[in-house]
Amino acid sequence: MSILDNLNWRYATKKMNGTPVEQEKVDFILEAARLAPTSSGLQPFRIIEITDPKLKEQILPIAYNQSQIVDGSHLLVFAAYDKYTKERIDNTFAWQNNERNLPEDFAADYKNNLWATYSQLSEDTQFNHAARQAYIAFGIAIAAAAELKVDATPMEGFNSAELDKLLQLSELNLKSVTILALGNRDEENDWLVNLKKVRVHQDDFVIRK
Amino acid sequence: MSILDNLNWRYATKKMNGTPVEQEKVDFILEAARLAPTSSGLQPFRIIEITDPKLKEQILPIAYNQSQIVDGSHLLVFAAYDKYTKERIDNTFAWQNNERNLPEDFAADYKNNLWATYSQLSEDTQFNHAARQAYIAFGIAIAAAAELKVDATPMEGFNSAELDKLLQLSELNLKSVTILALGNRDEENDWLVNLKKVRVHQDDFVIRK
Repeated sequence: MSILDNLNWRYATKKMNGTPVEQEKVDFILEAARLAPTSSGLQPFRIIEITDPKLKEQILPIAYNQSQIVDGSHLLVFAAYDKYTKERIDNTFAWQNNERNLPEDFAADYKNNLWATYSQLSEDTQFNHAARQAYIAFGIAIAAAAELKVDATPMEGFNSAELDKLLQLSELNLKSVTILALGNRDEENDWLVNLKKVRVHQDDFVIRK
Repeated sequence: MSILDNLNWRYATKKMNGTPVEQEKVDFILEAARLAPTSSGLQPFRIIEITDPKLKEQILPIAYNQSQIVDGSHLLVFAAYDKYTKERIDNTFAWQNNERNLPEDFAADYKNNLWATYSQLSEDTQFNHAARQAYIAFGIAIAAAAELKVDATPMEGFNSAELDKLLQLSELNLKSVTILALGNRDEENDWLVNLKKVRVHQDDFVIRK
């Protein structure tokens, strides 16, 4: 099966049946997200994996009572760092150089330019950039779930400030940006499951030059 | 090969050898991007596929002379709509309902609420939201390229205002957000090709609750 078959198979599951997804499948999806490329390899986001039923119940109203929150077995919250910091950038480069057996100061000019650039941007712009990196992994996680035939619902409909408060994300300097609910479809009660996947035509989607 | 193998194979190619990627492979990557999920299915972005060598030469300085711009055979520019419009939302829902043989006014309340929500946001917030949707497809396109063993370099290092001007994107209400250069690696001259892929540990990347 190619990624195209997998993307054609998947859909934004509207009703899940409450049965659990095997943890090893969730770990595969998380590994795909971890391997996603990010700008300068900084990976400026984390994923909160939620399985606690009580916590999911608390999230339900924060996500406007969308049932996948509780009917899915795993909830992946993609949370981006609220800004870039010199410390995190330094640590990432030190870690990369160490893992690659490179000198400690390899790419030091690049790193210093990177921080000079980021530190001049507003915190909001930095956060938006970090959020975009999280979305690269979000897309890849969705494709990974489809490869395993795990149903997944990408969800932006939630109150991020309330979710951040509940998960105490500000203590980690993180802000939630998007959610992926993982579970198994309830075919009989899902209005979307049998509807045709609709996309704009390739000729309208791609501008060739 | 699973998506994990493909993601482990890929890297942000720093030097390409100038040989062309087959068009059918590029079309596969574009199809994966087209199938990417987006919020409410609005697909608020387009991809500009550039193969014209003269145009790539003009883009080279706009992308700080990164050689993949001209040494790759295809350049995919992901460009998001500058804001949401009632017309595009109406057209998308009309198209979806028509393709699905649903009544013209199916999900009309949902659609009207969507526009009511978007239209209250600043244009900058709308654009940032559209850009995030483009990044879902960007991630999926990167995974699709890796599946075909097409080398790809995700590139954010370019002057988007200048690129928009060159490609006359404002006439289409689009703004460039990120680039994917497609080509074939030049193993002998690529400093990154043999370095270990480094990511944060899964235990640090995932917060389990």
